[in-house]
Amino acid sequence: MQIAKVVGTVVSTYKEDNLSGTKFLMLQLIDIEGQLSMDYEVAADTVGAGVEEWVLVSRGSGARLVRDSEKRPIDAAVIAIIDTVSLDNYLLYSKKSEGR
Amino acid sequence: MQIAKVVGTVVSTYKEDNLSGTKFLMLQLIDIEGQLSMDYEVAADTVGAGVEEWVLVSRGSGARLVRDSEKRPIDAAVIAIIDTVSLDNYLLYSKKSEGR
Amino acid sequence: MQIAKVVGTVVSTYKEDNLSGTKFLMLQLIDIEGQLSMDYEVAADTVGAGVEEWVLVSRGSGARLVRDSEKRPIDAAVIAIIDTVSLDNYLLYSKKSEGR
Amino acid sequence: MQIAKVVGTVVSTYKEDNLSGTKFLMLQLIDIEGQLSMDYEVAADTVGAGVEEWVLVSRGSGARLVRDSEKRPIDAAVIAIIDTVSLDNYLLYSKKSEGR
Amino acid sequence: MQIAKVVGTVVSTYKEDNLSGTKFLMLQLIDIEGQLSMDYEVAADTVGAGVEEWVLVSRGSGARLVRDSEKRPIDAAVIAIIDTVSLDNYLLYSKKSEGR
Repeated sequence: MQIAKVVGTVVSTYKEDNLSGTKFLMLQLIDIEGQLSMDYEVAADTVGAGVEEWVLVSRGSGARLVRDSEKRPIDAAVIAIIDTVSLDNYLLYSKKSEGR
Repeated sequence: MQIAKVVGTVVSTYKEDNLSGTKFLMLQLIDIEGQLSMDYEVAADTVGAGVEEWVLVSRGSGARLVRDSEKRPIDAAVIAIIDTVSLDNYLLYSKKSEGR
Repeated sequence: MQIAKVVGTVVSTYKEDNLSGTKFLMLQLIDIEGQLSMDYEVAADTVGAGVEEWVLVSRGSGARLVRDSEKRPIDAAVIAIIDTVSLDNYLLYSKKSEGR
Repeated sequence: MQIAKVVGTVVSTYKEDNLSGTKFLMLQLIDIEGQLSMDYEVAADTVGAGVEEWVLVSRGSGARLVRDSEKRPIDAAVIAIIDTVSLDNYLLYSKKSEGR
Repeated sequence: MQIAKVVGTVVSTYKEDNLSGTKFLMLQLIDIEGQLSMDYEVAADTVGAGVEEWVLVSRGSGARLVRDSEKRPIDAAVIAIIDTVSLDNYLLYSKKSEGR
């Protein structure tokens, strides 16, 4: 999985039938140093992630193992909202330490 | 999924039998800043996307979950025509605001 | 799918049993401007593509939906011989216009 | 598979139901010269890998063939703890020779 | 598939149960000009490839269609030992012409 930050949403009216009700989030991928990269992924979200949160995104067929997604033609999904990312002895990210 | 702009079509006479009737669109991928990148994808389209429209493209096995595509040997499909892409407080793209 | 040009062949005697009879083509990928890129793919061919022709290559599990390939351990296949690639108002490629 | 070094952990409270009990490791990929690259993967671990160890990471649907992972929406898993990586006549890595 | 040269081996004692008996080869990918690239793949081998040989590596779910690999959590396998790679009118590689 890759780590990503929720930065927006994508809305669509005309889409595949079995996508109705799917919420699409715009995710910007986070690099190994905790910085925003230039890569993004539009992912289905059933976890309820909000803007600014860091999440785990799963890509490929695994994305369709999230709730009610078996028949959705998606290739990326948010599977978890991240609490902490710990590297060696320091904390790369903590949800609580983010400004609220 | 990635965001892409429909920029053309690909036509083929000699192809796998179970591809007959499949419409192939030439998609140019859009980067995180809303600009055209140098990457493209030739994708099957069952949604009816038109040139200049922004779409969501799904790649891998998910592409075969679109209508009538279960047995098609494809690895990319248009799954939605995008209305809006919203980042934080501004609109990266709106279908209506595009020149018509 | 990606667009590629057939540039050669790969021959193998010692291979997985269920690959016997599989023809492997060396494909050089074409970029968005219609130029040869430095990327290639060795793909199974059941369509009968010839050297110099432009083809569509499907990668991943989709490659095994071509004829007689269900049990082949391949990850890339030629699925169509391209007639034309049209971008906006000009023709990026036409099979007929190629020197013959 | 790629070779990676365990460099940390990722913790999540809100996640897909069928991820409960899954341990997520932060892996930094190793390049062909045995150096840490800038690429990472967050992978499920059922093998019991520890920080500093080199592991094999499998990505895509293969990641769900590890123990109890069939229904987990993951796309990467640790499948082995590496003892040695031998290139030609020299040892790129040996678990024993690492400082302990 | 990609073309790769066998450059070493990876050994592991602690691994997923259904990997017991799997032989892992270190493969260095070959580029379109026949040169070693900086990319590698650790692949399962059931074909019996030896060091210095050029092979075809299949990645993703296709890698599990090789002999006895259906349940192995792998994402790459050697599927063929290459005899020749022919580009247009010249031979990029011939197994026999390699020094022996």
